[in-house]
Amino acid sequence: MPELKAESTTLTVRTRGKGTYEITDEVARAVRDSGVQTGTATVFIQHTSASLIIYENADPSARTDLHAFFDRLVPENADYFVHTAEGPDDMPSHLRMVLTRTSEVIPIARGRLTLGTWQGIYVFEHRAAAHTRTLVVNVVGV
Amino acid sequence: MPELKAESTTLTVRTRGKGTYEITDEVARAVRDSGVQTGTATVFIQHTSASLIIYENADPSARTDLHAFFDRLVPENADYFVHTAEGPDDMPSHLRMVLTRTSEVIPIARGRLTLGTWQGIYVFEHRAAAHTRTLVVNVVGV
Amino acid sequence: MPELKAESTTLTVRTRGKGTYEITDEVARAVRDSGVQTGTATVFIQHTSASLIIYENADPSARTDLHAFFDRLVPENADYFVHTAEGPDDMPSHLRMVLTRTSEVIPIARGRLTLGTWQGIYVFEHRAAAHTRTLVVNVVGV
Repeated sequence: MPELKAESTTLTVRTRGKGTYEITDEVARAVRDSGVQTGTATVFIQHTSASLIIYENADPSARTDLHAFFDRLVPENADYFVHTAEGPDDMPSHLRMVLTRTSEVIPIARGRLTLGTWQGIYVFEHRAAAHTRTLVVNVVGV
Repeated sequence: MPELKAESTTLTVRTRGKGTYEITDEVARAVRDSGVQTGTATVFIQHTSASLIIYENADPSARTDLHAFFDRLVPENADYFVHTAEGPDDMPSHLRMVLTRTSEVIPIARGRLTLGTWQGIYVFEHRAAAHTRTLVVNVVGV
Repeated sequence: MPELKAESTTLTVRTRGKGTYEITDEVARAVRDSGVQTGTATVFIQHTSASLIIYENADPSARTDLHAFFDRLVPENADYFVHTAEGPDDMPSHLRMVLTRTSEVIPIARGRLTLGTWQGIYVFEHRAAAHTRTLVVNVVGV
């Protein structure tokens, strides 16, 4: 019978304004440290104004267009917003995180994340100011 | 060797039209009842016209703007819709659920959901009429 | 003490241009083959120009409108795109996958996926040409 492992670790990511910040290496390290060969890694961000995505990590221009698209899809200063006390980038940050993810779950096989060739895991920061973001990475499997 | 636990429970949520309905306490109770200390909670909604989000639970005005944003992003009565037999709010409900989540996965550490300070788990009801929504909560870990 | 199972399998899906391709039966088979009675199935697509959704599988017109909606929400040839080397459908494919899912997690109870009556699991292809898409399905539980 295989030995079950369940490990929980915390990651801290310092962001520098709106944009995407890759964390693939940090998540891969948590998987390696856990010793899990087959199972799942759950990455969870403990915030409502930043989110997670898995995105193409080869050509940075794909991230430039991503940022521009979200600036258009969720405008600041919409005339119907009532949640405005924390500044013009606050309410859009909640809408942008709802349209992306609070958690990403990645299978583990042969001791490694099963990411595709061009896939990276990113924190998507939606606030204009620098923030320290806290993530939880749980690895469960055998 | 730690003892594996895997528990599955069902939740029923009665909605009263379009909007968000918090279920954080019910999910937390399922985690507590399971006895799992480290692992994951998977919340899954068994419908295609309602969805799940993790969202800010401090200031209700953030939810007011969320509802208004989705009414603009996915209009009823788009002139190109062909799936109209179940009423004007039916097709938009499918598009709204595709843009949010059918499942949310939350890590468990020290026997508790690792939600951030301002995060709540919500059912996002997309139909105008009241509905009884069924959710499955599975907790796996040690 | 229950016996833990953790199985990882790979699925290949051949797509024929933009649209949705149901994979519910293939995922259900992986669950059945695993023998897991209570746990979770994680479906993960190893690409950044195709994604996953859980969607209504009764009336095909709901999928027709889904495809039309995404063609409007994420236009090709936006004048601000800079990531254009791989053709007009490439950058939109990355934006469409960010707005949907790279993984879907479905609870397992009594040996079966706990999908609702009208829910199917779909690959959402965002490129115009035919592609062979690789998915990983991991099943963890007892």
